[in-house]
Amino acid sequence: MPKLDAVLETSLYFDDLDAAKRFYGEVMGLKPMFEDDRLAACPIGAGSVLLMFKRGHTADDTQIPGGTVPGHDGQGKGHVAFAIDAGALADWEAHLERHKVAIESRVAWAKGGKSLFFRDPEGNLLEVATPGLWRNY
Amino acid sequence: MPKLDAVLETSLYFDDLDAAKRFYGEVMGLKPMFEDDRLAACPIGAGSVLLMFKRGHTADDTQIPGGTVPGHDGQGKGHVAFAIDAGALADWEAHLERHKVAIESRVAWAKGGKSLFFRDPEGNLLEVATPGLWRNY
Repeated sequence: MPKLDAVLETSLYFDDLDAAKRFYGEVMGLKPMFEDDRLAACPIGAGSVLLMFKRGHTADDTQIPGGTVPGHDGQGKGHVAFAIDAGALADWEAHLERHKVAIESRVAWAKGGKSLFFRDPEGNLLEVATPGLWRNY
Repeated sequence: MPKLDAVLETSLYFDDLDAAKRFYGEVMGLKPMFEDDRLAACPIGAGSVLLMFKRGHTADDTQIPGGTVPGHDGQGKGHVAFAIDAGALADWEAHLERHKVAIESRVAWAKGGKSLFFRDPEGNLLEVATPGLWRNY
């Protein structure tokens, strides 16, 4: 059977996309490679993309030059984890504190990885995690 | 400022987690590396994880040996794209047809990549995409 190589695009939805873009820019260090009224697409590393959508503006199909992107419509508070170097954990902790982002939890995983959990402005649960969490990370 | 290396975990939420696990197993070729009543965690490639959650069972904090995983609560129909080899596109198309999964749209991107869009059993919008879609893919 054919194979999936990786997750390419991960989606989050925001009532206030402008505020979300500020947070993901200033706190998470992400810069959109594409943005319009309903979407900001941020590259992360060599092959990951975070898609930030304006909630309530994605349910209809979108016509683009190469075809049609069908609608979707995420709600609620989602969860995304980001990979970080083990050596960057203390920097992330200090960086979040500097930006007055509350660290809601710290987890030490059985395989040796460590995670910090915190929230974006709309309550999505974000995590930065060092290697040693999963069999493939 | 500290750096994010990649998206590590992407989350989807399902009313019927068992049916979702069957679909993601049989059609998407994913096998959980961890599963319990509320979660199936599937590795994809060298460093991506798809987290499949039972909707309505994730809002409370979860105690684990190494700490507390705070609650989250996704709703609606999300969107995830998976990276595939350019040479696997025709195989994916045939594979989806064999499993009677309707291909809702085909997109040819300006940079040369191609995508197939289809739905999982709960209406999440899935995409398999070949390289040549984004600046970093």
